[in-house]
Amino acid sequence: MLEADFQYIIDTFFTLFSMVLIIFMVPGFAMLEAGLVRTKNVSSVLTVNMMIYAVASMVFLLIGYSIAFGSWENSSMSIWAAFLFQMAFVGKTINIMSGGVSERVRIIPLMIFTVIMGAIIYPLVVNISWGADILDATLLDLNMYDLAGSTVIHSTGGWALLAAILIIGPRRGRYKNGKIKVIPASNIPLVVLGGFLLWIGWFGFNGGSVGSISSVENANTVAKTIMNTNTAGLAGAIIAAVIMYVRYRLLDITMIINSALGGLVAITAAPDLYDMYTPILIGAIGGALVVFAVPMFDKFQFDDPVGALSVHLINGIWGTLAVGIFVKDISILDQFKGIIVVALFVFLSSYTVIYIINKIIPFRADDDVELEGLDVNEVGVEAYPEFKRAI
Amino acid sequence: MLEADFQYIIDTFFTLFSMVLIIFMVPGFAMLEAGLVRTKNVSSVLTVNMMIYAVASMVFLLIGYSIAFGSWENSSMSIWAAFLFQMAFVGKTINIMSGGVSERVRIIPLMIFTVIMGAIIYPLVVNISWGADILDATLLDLNMYDLAGSTVIHSTGGWALLAAILIIGPRRGRYKNGKIKVIPASNIPLVVLGGFLLWIGWFGFNGGSVGSISSVENANTVAKTIMNTNTAGLAGAIIAAVIMYVRYRLLDITMIINSALGGLVAITAAPDLYDMYTPILIGAIGGALVVFAVPMFDKFQFDDPVGALSVHLINGIWGTLAVGIFVKDISILDQFKGIIVVALFVFLSSYTVIYIINKIIPFRADDDVELEGLDVNEVGVEAYPEFKRAI
Amino acid sequence: MLEADFQYIIDTFFTLFSMVLIIFMVPGFAMLEAGLVRTKNVSSVLTVNMMIYAVASMVFLLIGYSIAFGSWENSSMSIWAAFLFQMAFVGKTINIMSGGVSERVRIIPLMIFTVIMGAIIYPLVVNISWGADILDATLLDLNMYDLAGSTVIHSTGGWALLAAILIIGPRRGRYKNGKIKVIPASNIPLVVLGGFLLWIGWFGFNGGSVGSISSVENANTVAKTIMNTNTAGLAGAIIAAVIMYVRYRLLDITMIINSALGGLVAITAAPDLYDMYTPILIGAIGGALVVFAVPMFDKFQFDDPVGALSVHLINGIWGTLAVGIFVKDISILDQFKGIIVVALFVFLSSYTVIYIINKIIPFRADDDVELEGLDVNEVGVEAYPEFKRAI
Repeated sequence: MLEADFQYIIDTFFTLFSMVLIIFMVPGFAMLEAGLVRTKNVSSVLTVNMMIYAVASMVFLLIGYSIAFGSWENSSMSIWAAFLFQMAFVGKTINIMSGGVSERVRIIPLMIFTVIMGAIIYPLVVNISWGADILDATLLDLNMYDLAGSTVIHSTGGWALLAAILIIGPRRGRYKNGKIKVIPASNIPLVVLGGFLLWIGWFGFNGGSVGSISSVENANTVAKTIMNTNTAGLAGAIIAAVIMYVRYRLLDITMIINSALGGLVAITAAPDLYDMYTPILIGAIGGALVVFAVPMFDKFQFDDPVGALSVHLINGIWGTLAVGIFVKDISILDQFKGIIVVALFVFLSSYTVIYIINKIIPFRADDDVELEGLDVNEVGVEAYPEFKRAI
Repeated sequence: MLEADFQYIIDTFFTLFSMVLIIFMVPGFAMLEAGLVRTKNVSSVLTVNMMIYAVASMVFLLIGYSIAFGSWENSSMSIWAAFLFQMAFVGKTINIMSGGVSERVRIIPLMIFTVIMGAIIYPLVVNISWGADILDATLLDLNMYDLAGSTVIHSTGGWALLAAILIIGPRRGRYKNGKIKVIPASNIPLVVLGGFLLWIGWFGFNGGSVGSISSVENANTVAKTIMNTNTAGLAGAIIAAVIMYVRYRLLDITMIINSALGGLVAITAAPDLYDMYTPILIGAIGGALVVFAVPMFDKFQFDDPVGALSVHLINGIWGTLAVGIFVKDISILDQFKGIIVVALFVFLSSYTVIYIINKIIPFRADDDVELEGLDVNEVGVEAYPEFKRAI
Repeated sequence: MLEADFQYIIDTFFTLFSMVLIIFMVPGFAMLEAGLVRTKNVSSVLTVNMMIYAVASMVFLLIGYSIAFGSWENSSMSIWAAFLFQMAFVGKTINIMSGGVSERVRIIPLMIFTVIMGAIIYPLVVNISWGADILDATLLDLNMYDLAGSTVIHSTGGWALLAAILIIGPRRGRYKNGKIKVIPASNIPLVVLGGFLLWIGWFGFNGGSVGSISSVENANTVAKTIMNTNTAGLAGAIIAAVIMYVRYRLLDITMIINSALGGLVAITAAPDLYDMYTPILIGAIGGALVVFAVPMFDKFQFDDPVGALSVHLINGIWGTLAVGIFVKDISILDQFKGIIVVALFVFLSSYTVIYIINKIIPFRADDDVELEGLDVNEVGVEAYPEFKRAI
């Protein structure tokens, strides 16, 4: 057998394996968010997650992939595997955005945004970062190192969310007379299940982003990437537990999960480049950032029921900068430039698109719909109709 | 290394990978059905799912595999991997059947049927479609193309379900004075989780059915098979959302999930043969068929709490016919003949077996048991004992 | 390509695949235990599961792996993959222990024990069984055959649990005037979901323990190992169903799940060595042992809300002995010696460590905390705040 054929076969298989792990993030996000919102909005959140996967993947197939990569060709593995791997990413950016505006966002305008994000905005980010590169040889050409998308996926979703929050506003009654009303998560097992499905998906996300396992060197890089990814998640969880215990003598599991995810976001830019100890530091800082960012965003009255800004935006930025700090040959200026260019492009384009859609079909549910819950009004299906509500 | 050895190793690994994905469909079906039934029947449905996996797999190991394939030999991969892959299929046909008679079926007669279905009926369907082929050189010899079982798995389960519904009848109070009483699903997050586990399992189901990934051509076919499978599911979800919104201004998530599954069933006959756009059409038609079939079966008073007839029977037929319509070298008459032969064999044999068992141990629970719930009476374990019921 | 390179690549990939399956056991244990305890202790159990994974993995990375294996070297696959596979095991022993003292154990002392168990006690067990072997050429040198840890993982966790139960005692009100108060599981779908995630994880656990899939012989061994593993689980489930039905005319799903897990524990010592029928016997005996051990431990007033002693300790012993009984070249005396040496070391060291920690920070929650539930007092997050309690 030709070595090239061997590599083609193994890398196709490996990429399909990675893709399947990433698809576990679809129920992962769905369960995490369904657990974090109130029971009256659970079916709505689940419908949004389902439809984002369906719509974003479909428009990426029809339009987005060509914008990102220019052509449907690949010589190192089956093009269909390469496509599937990239397709598995696209919904994630929109999940990040939709999660943060849960409990007051309407599904139809969100779906219209999903079409534009999945077909154009996200593919353009991929284009200039990993793909065909329309900015090549211009002043804006990016040299950012971002293996699996601390910026390309996570900050991108985060900036879109920030735009959405500015336009849509907080949930009714969340901020009143300068006080923050705590709205507790409704189903903690779902939060934990979702968190672990995301964690497992990350192994495919980051491991698969190496792009090949078919040489001894690449096999080592893939394994190290997965190990470092995991280590950063561990460190994020531990630091959050320590901070929460020192402060409150309580081990808030939702904060621990979000900090683990923060560590995972932070390592995503370069899990392949670090030694085995650096991810502990990067993940711990990432986890701590989540703990401190959550109340900060609340101070700004950026109402984000799932903590997506803290997890994905803050740590997407931190993780991208960290590569410049900890890896010798990576320029922190290049990293910074990448963060800024993507931030400006995504925030401005998302803001514009959301603003225009919002003028035609308001993103925000009416007050009485928000009060009664979106499930009854937008989905027609209550999440737990037989369970008596205590609240 | 010999090329044959390389292929043996890679195909064994790939088949084990595919098998593992299919096993995720066991909790997939369990969660989907547990979410769709009322809380008083949840433990019963879960027990049924668990025991179908245990009993059907065991009798397939002891008896069924030999009936289907004649001998325990395989030269292209480890026979144990080949067996495991086939074993992972067998419970599915019975899951389809058991789900549709939920909330009134007793577990013991269902287990007796499981023994006969897993040991004899299903293996005979495999025999004439994919296996040793006892009909070879007879007039009934099948030339149906059915890569991963639109007919062999899904219609087979569907015909058995139809037989069971005819004998067991609807839930008490479901159809009264010509009116249909809506019985809402009790736990929507479980429905969505189950739906996505099934979806992910389908990648193994269809991808693994290619049988080999160890050449460049096969690697391409596997990747394309998984891509087309996914695309049909996306299209099924989208079309259901559109129909539901146009009709009711509501995005019923249970219908969307079932339509996605309908699209997945429909593509299963030939995901390897289509170009990348045809699955959109096949899946969309499949999804729409579910939306229209659900009320149709209710008109016939075929009470099917999980929509299994619409998802598996209707789309198993549609998917098998679609190959004859869209693929040049496949004869639609051969496809039709396969559908009819399998239908007659499975429906008649299942009806006979269920009829005989039913005379000795009635399938249907007594009225008071049905009213109180099967959990207390058949399992002895309530699903959610601490949660106060609103209904 | 060199054959050694081929093997390095394939075995790295295969080990990463196996590791990912094992990581599914983390949410598997978490969901199983969250479903088995009362709603007031669900967040606590979830936090414990999360933190065990984080803390045990981290200390294994920093300390434990070196104690177990001496050096970070591996020539047959990427060292990072080899590490990840071993790391995926470590938390399991502690999960077994923590599950059995649920509903009254405090998190902080448990975390201190986790550090010592993950950094020292468990790594020493691995050292003398699979690793660098400090007992080599001494009288205590072990010749026990234990492919994937019936003793090394499951009995180890079981002995630590026994030590913990002796020190911590039963839940308040569980044993009163010689009577046993039944405390029902709060969420059966989570129990079943957790059970199946564990089952699927077992394929990676046992299959991956073969250590290589990169020759025809090894590919066969891996496939057979996974097949035999599955068969023992099937037999465990079936025997429990039969016993429960004969005795009570009820199919208690929690007992069925635990018996399936018991069968899986029992086969774990040598799934690679048996023919395809022996696992039926081993798993059936394992499942039956669970059914009879559960009331036996209750007679001793060893309060174990999740049945971990019956599943892991009893079947860890049974499975290790079974190799000596059913495999010709394995000495039952060597198996017995291994069981005893590990038992003495783990029980005595765990008892000592738990005893000392307990003197400084009591493991047991105060009575009023236990009554109100650990969630409010230790986590600060109720699991289901919106659901009205019936009990």
